[in-house]
Amino acid sequence: MSDALLIREDSNGVCQLTLNRPDAYNSLSMELMKALIATFDEIAEDLSVRVVVLRGGGRGFCSGHDLKQMLGEGEEEYYQCTFDTCSELMQRIVNLSVPVIAQIHGVATAAGCQIVASCDLAIASDKSRFATPGVNIGLFCSTPMVALSRSVSKKHAMEMLLLGDMIGAERAWEMGLINWVVDDEHLEKKTREVADKISASSRKAISIGKQAYVRQIEKPLNEAYTECSRVMTENMMTHDAGEGIDAFINKRKPNWQHR
Amino acid sequence: MSDALLIREDSNGVCQLTLNRPDAYNSLSMELMKALIATFDEIAEDLSVRVVVLRGGGRGFCSGHDLKQMLGEGEEEYYQCTFDTCSELMQRIVNLSVPVIAQIHGVATAAGCQIVASCDLAIASDKSRFATPGVNIGLFCSTPMVALSRSVSKKHAMEMLLLGDMIGAERAWEMGLINWVVDDEHLEKKTREVADKISASSRKAISIGKQAYVRQIEKPLNEAYTECSRVMTENMMTHDAGEGIDAFINKRKPNWQHR
Amino acid sequence: MSDALLIREDSNGVCQLTLNRPDAYNSLSMELMKALIATFDEIAEDLSVRVVVLRGGGRGFCSGHDLKQMLGEGEEEYYQCTFDTCSELMQRIVNLSVPVIAQIHGVATAAGCQIVASCDLAIASDKSRFATPGVNIGLFCSTPMVALSRSVSKKHAMEMLLLGDMIGAERAWEMGLINWVVDDEHLEKKTREVADKISASSRKAISIGKQAYVRQIEKPLNEAYTECSRVMTENMMTHDAGEGIDAFINKRKPNWQHR
Repeated sequence: MSDALLIREDSNGVCQLTLNRPDAYNSLSMELMKALIATFDEIAEDLSVRVVVLRGGGRGFCSGHDLKQMLGEGEEEYYQCTFDTCSELMQRIVNLSVPVIAQIHGVATAAGCQIVASCDLAIASDKSRFATPGVNIGLFCSTPMVALSRSVSKKHAMEMLLLGDMIGAERAWEMGLINWVVDDEHLEKKTREVADKISASSRKAISIGKQAYVRQIEKPLNEAYTECSRVMTENMMTHDAGEGIDAFINKRKPNWQHR
Repeated sequence: MSDALLIREDSNGVCQLTLNRPDAYNSLSMELMKALIATFDEIAEDLSVRVVVLRGGGRGFCSGHDLKQMLGEGEEEYYQCTFDTCSELMQRIVNLSVPVIAQIHGVATAAGCQIVASCDLAIASDKSRFATPGVNIGLFCSTPMVALSRSVSKKHAMEMLLLGDMIGAERAWEMGLINWVVDDEHLEKKTREVADKISASSRKAISIGKQAYVRQIEKPLNEAYTECSRVMTENMMTHDAGEGIDAFINKRKPNWQHR
Repeated sequence: MSDALLIREDSNGVCQLTLNRPDAYNSLSMELMKALIATFDEIAEDLSVRVVVLRGGGRGFCSGHDLKQMLGEGEEEYYQCTFDTCSELMQRIVNLSVPVIAQIHGVATAAGCQIVASCDLAIASDKSRFATPGVNIGLFCSTPMVALSRSVSKKHAMEMLLLGDMIGAERAWEMGLINWVVDDEHLEKKTREVADKISASSRKAISIGKQAYVRQIEKPLNEAYTECSRVMTENMMTHDAGEGIDAFINKRKPNWQHR
């Protein structure tokens, strides 16, 4: 295994990012957050990437912030910088033009659970567990709440935030926090299937749609329709839409320009 | 069967609209969208209608836009007009003063799935299937996304939008996209029961409430309460509220003025 | 049992409020609503309270407004005052700095169901039932809709609002209106467990988080993150966060300043 905090492996349009601080349960040290942000900025410019898979190395997905590092610094300015950097990271995931899939095994807690909530899709092992456990240490998971409360209903968000207990993959699935729960041994295969399906689509169409999602979700209904009606017309004028519709009508495989 | 694109049949306050382009899987040609808009405008003025049931003739519910017609025109202006007209249609369903129930058999895809998401209630056959499959043809379902993302959670919307796969009625029910799944042979009976229940209510009360829903959902909590507190007082001053409460207290059947 | 409309019993940081109009199914008379508002205002100033449990005395939770009292008054000004007072009460629950848990047995209908939707958590007996039945009496549940439509998805809210039928605890759980369904005889025990868990947390951390929830949920994503990043830094500077993190790292029980 590499010594790098973050391992990037690209294959067939799928960019797999592995959080590589296994001894610290992949907790988000300042260095790891900055490595993630820098990598997402690279990916945003890299047309060869059509989908990102985010996963953790070692025993689990991600246990949130690195509390020891934070306490070691112990100053308000440093805390503010930590939460600002983390918030920036989460918004990079939301705003990235290609989809980000969370592949979860083991625990995803605090900011780790926030990553899951921020991703577009999430696939979890049946042995995975989730929590926003800040209340147990006197530090309410207020920034994870931003992502969580936009991902699940109010009662479900409060259940996790107020109790801070671990919930199993099944409960997370019921809440709609994750899309699929699979046997631990099938986690990688299922994730690869989902990533490959997206990777086989037109990168142009996917990125038009994902970026439109972010803009429209915060608008009133009529403005959202005005926006997306314009977006869909622009999408229709692209090479890939013409090609895709022609391929569909003629029952052949499309040949995307923007793979 | 009539030659009309849209068949309207009224009975006991229930207005049943059947999309009638069975050979084209009831795809939304410009003419069919305009017929639907005109009919919703008629219904808005017709006090005899207390609820609308929308269904498809032939093998399925609705397969979305008429791609052949669109390609045949092939100009940006026409595409924009198509998506604008479609967005107008969907907002007619949302803003119509009486409830609209989707009765789904077979497939409901793209703008067909958007209709389901836009309706107030949805009843589906256990054999029905749903998709926003635009990614498969290089044309992301951006306008269906507006309705879908206001109907189901983010992860569920993304699951449909990014993969474009057909999902069964059971998965659509889990997501909250539809209210009830019934055996294919009971679909009409169940829909009729739901429609008759609404039709037996005060049209006035139902329309006050549905219109208030649309206004309040986009407001902050305190403004939503100010709005709806006023709405409820106005509702209380109507004949039907007085009659309904008196009937309830005296354990008799109410006699609505605004049936 | 006391003659008071509302019975308050405090124990170990848990404040249990019992609606005490059992002969009227705990319907919300003007007096009961005012007693609740006054009590929530007291609790807001009382640092000994760390969580509130709200339940009904007698056969059920709460059947909504007191229709007989309202009809007896019969004037627009009185109706407006009733709905305004009720809306004020619901916002007191939402904005209270400590969590409010609904403990539901029997029926929770109309404004009674609205209380359930407004609470942070809800635990229900398997025999409990829920409805927004206004349509049956010509009075659409427009103010309950404000809470309901922020608690469950659109299709689910409309299912309750347009049909007005009783739904069982299982359906309410599927919708996400309630967190847990337990056997009737275990209702109190389960509620106590949840309340005790919250009561054992830092009151300071919980109140910082609950109040941040209310502010951030109505903001766009980037503003929500700016807000909560600041909130979390402030939380980090409190005694209880320092104590909680130190206790966690040293595997000991934390000793909260703000119990």
